[in-house]
Amino acid sequence: MSIKDVIAGQRNEEGIAAVLGILKQRYGERFQTGLSYREQHSHTTSYLPAQLPDGVLFAESSDDVKAVVKLCAAHKVPMVPFGTGSSLEGHVNAPYGGISIDFSRMNRVLEVNAEDLDCTVEPGITREELNVHLRDTGLFFPIDPGANASIGGMASTRASGTNAVRYGTMKDNVLALTVVTANGEEIRTAHRARKSSAGYDLTRLYVGAEGTLGIITSVTLKLQGIPAKISGGVCAFPSLKAACDAVIMTIQMGIPVARIELLDEMQIKAVNAYSALTLSERPTLFVEFHGTEETVALQAEQFREIAAEFGSDEFRYTANAEERNQLWKARHNAYWAGRALAPDLNGLSTDVCVPISRLADCVSETQADVRDSGLLAPIVGHAGDGNFHVLLLFNEKNAEDLERAEAFMARLNARALAMDGTCTGEHGVGQGKMGYLEQELGAALDVMRHIKRSLDPDNLFNPGKIFRL
Amino acid sequence: MSIKDVIAGQRNEEGIAAVLGILKQRYGERFQTGLSYREQHSHTTSYLPAQLPDGVLFAESSDDVKAVVKLCAAHKVPMVPFGTGSSLEGHVNAPYGGISIDFSRMNRVLEVNAEDLDCTVEPGITREELNVHLRDTGLFFPIDPGANASIGGMASTRASGTNAVRYGTMKDNVLALTVVTANGEEIRTAHRARKSSAGYDLTRLYVGAEGTLGIITSVTLKLQGIPAKISGGVCAFPSLKAACDAVIMTIQMGIPVARIELLDEMQIKAVNAYSALTLSERPTLFVEFHGTEETVALQAEQFREIAAEFGSDEFRYTANAEERNQLWKARHNAYWAGRALAPDLNGLSTDVCVPISRLADCVSETQADVRDSGLLAPIVGHAGDGNFHVLLLFNEKNAEDLERAEAFMARLNARALAMDGTCTGEHGVGQGKMGYLEQELGAALDVMRHIKRSLDPDNLFNPGKIFRL
Repeated sequence: MSIKDVIAGQRNEEGIAAVLGILKQRYGERFQTGLSYREQHSHTTSYLPAQLPDGVLFAESSDDVKAVVKLCAAHKVPMVPFGTGSSLEGHVNAPYGGISIDFSRMNRVLEVNAEDLDCTVEPGITREELNVHLRDTGLFFPIDPGANASIGGMASTRASGTNAVRYGTMKDNVLALTVVTANGEEIRTAHRARKSSAGYDLTRLYVGAEGTLGIITSVTLKLQGIPAKISGGVCAFPSLKAACDAVIMTIQMGIPVARIELLDEMQIKAVNAYSALTLSERPTLFVEFHGTEETVALQAEQFREIAAEFGSDEFRYTANAEERNQLWKARHNAYWAGRALAPDLNGLSTDVCVPISRLADCVSETQADVRDSGLLAPIVGHAGDGNFHVLLLFNEKNAEDLERAEAFMARLNARALAMDGTCTGEHGVGQGKMGYLEQELGAALDVMRHIKRSLDPDNLFNPGKIFRL
Repeated sequence: MSIKDVIAGQRNEEGIAAVLGILKQRYGERFQTGLSYREQHSHTTSYLPAQLPDGVLFAESSDDVKAVVKLCAAHKVPMVPFGTGSSLEGHVNAPYGGISIDFSRMNRVLEVNAEDLDCTVEPGITREELNVHLRDTGLFFPIDPGANASIGGMASTRASGTNAVRYGTMKDNVLALTVVTANGEEIRTAHRARKSSAGYDLTRLYVGAEGTLGIITSVTLKLQGIPAKISGGVCAFPSLKAACDAVIMTIQMGIPVARIELLDEMQIKAVNAYSALTLSERPTLFVEFHGTEETVALQAEQFREIAAEFGSDEFRYTANAEERNQLWKARHNAYWAGRALAPDLNGLSTDVCVPISRLADCVSETQADVRDSGLLAPIVGHAGDGNFHVLLLFNEKNAEDLERAEAFMARLNARALAMDGTCTGEHGVGQGKMGYLEQELGAALDVMRHIKRSLDPDNLFNPGKIFRL
């Protein structure tokens, strides 16, 4: 079995058989090869077909990870790290088979340094578990990609979500990592100082590497003080362009919104149906403000003026938590409400991101494209970052349907690139966006390939993702 | 001439001679080999001895950079990028000779996208030049490392400085780069979207790589709106620990100070002498607030309460720009005031950075160490980040003096590491901190070496920096 064969997509049957035998013997019930486990560990919310791993190891410590990496390296068997499986781009598929390393049992909080506003966790902890743990400290971890994803998975896809507009993405909120490298050794990328010029920024290299350069075994995160006051509101606009223009002005004026989310008419229709709401079926912004009693009121007032300027006739605002949750319900249920428009169809969520000045153009042209293409595809977005999702609903088994969806995606990505944007604001590349990444970054992919080959010469860490080697 | 010889520190005389001949013919007066040019391009504010390049090319375009990289690659000749020479760790030294690429003529602003709060510049522009250019847009580029450094140099050392506590470091403020790689091709690391999950974070890899992985040819930067109101103040504390504790509480309470700078007694004495001021010779904090009329007043009031709690009897505060500049004069002149304490001695500025909760301990122990060692060494720091400088004044030609300074540095770095900090918060590693980096990151350096070898197989990009290959 040569490296070339692995790269060429051949399964290393001999190596896999050897590793399966050893792992069964070594880990007993912690290593599973049953079909249901293997299916579960390649089943994600992606439209991409599942590619099953040959076995699933439930890791319980970084020693387990080091051991399995050494074993797989010795037998040239691929490894695919698995958090919660909420990825959208086929990240946990195992195109060449191999071992899925499940991190759900590595979900401990290793330390909380409240006075430094940081904590260190194992990668399997979910963001909700972490925030429950932190509740009594007055601190919270802000990044919210929607799904209750694992911190390791969020780090690996450089996740962000609704409040990145205020708190940044995983790139900005990971202080340090420990990572098991190709030789089975564990390295630390940085320590806990808030800033550092100590050599190459390995932290940021592994954040967003989608598990292709090494396996994360702990994550040191920045935390935020829970705001003294949170308020929020909802307002509908006469047109999608007007809503986007209100977002653009809010950002340009430097109003520190914590969230500013856009839902188009079709999306509002979907949540009305899904959550029995009666929102006006127009393009709508959901906003949230974090601060003190005075500052949130001030921000809300500034925002109200902007919204009015762009024709919004009603800004439903509340500083009451329960009312806010009620108002925000539509946003929280957006994905499943969208899927419920056509429960039998596949859902594919795109995530282009453009400079804020181009948001109105990009969303408007995209909505027109949805209409012209006869697609069923609500739009919801983290508008403050210039990032929005089109939820394409289609039947992947119908060739015409699939072709239409793919042609639409190609146009959407070309549109975003022409506006100096990116094909992926937060989902990552995985298997689904390899072609688009090539269009976006061209020769820079050769640099990525050099790095991949140097840190994973046998192509065993989550192979077949991000780019073709 | 083998690669091994280059790595071993041999000069490639044959290759250098060939390249000198070709560059002279090709570039005329834009290529200089006179001693004064070569000295100037290895003369920095570092205490490290100069190691001269063999010639200096004044690049005027990225085509020049591509051409010189191709030429040097063909002849295996080292290249050292040069911005303004304000580096403190011997970054622009040429231990194996080769070509210094001077970027002072590549100082154009390529585009300003005011509505997206970003701009793209050539790497040779200095931060002051950039801010003059931006003046009429209502925007500014916030990172201020003290020196009027070039943007390319600041990116390469992951620079920060006085207002990183509010605006982050170069890591947070570079959106994208173009870089000439080892084969002489130019790549773009990202586009202008505010966030992206499009593959490996090459932007962050080149930021802080100290020119060892490729040569930056343009930088896309985030910009900030000029605050409607800036106010500032100065207050003295009964002890260094009290001053640090006030900083810690300010940060922990989430007061968004724009700058919070610490000067110890010796440093205040130095600036009083240097700038004919009459500041109370006690540990002192300089603070600055950015916001609106109301928010800066509110922040100042909150800070005043904290300062009082830690025994500060006077907070001299002003919202008047001229008065603020007058108050801040002491901070602005700190480095040269420190050097003026002993104009004949060498100056060496350390830059450890620790988690904020350890700042008081680290600074107090360090000051005691200065005293016990009989060193002349004022302390000034970006206290809000846990980052501080000890300006060691010593005679590098006196063996005992040098030994004492080096022993002190070793203790300082060990102290910072024991507190989960870093040996360099902002200056970078260069030649001076290679040993400390090894202590700090251990096996992670092997990952850096793999990356270096994969992206610069002949070790021609700024060789002999960051780590030994």
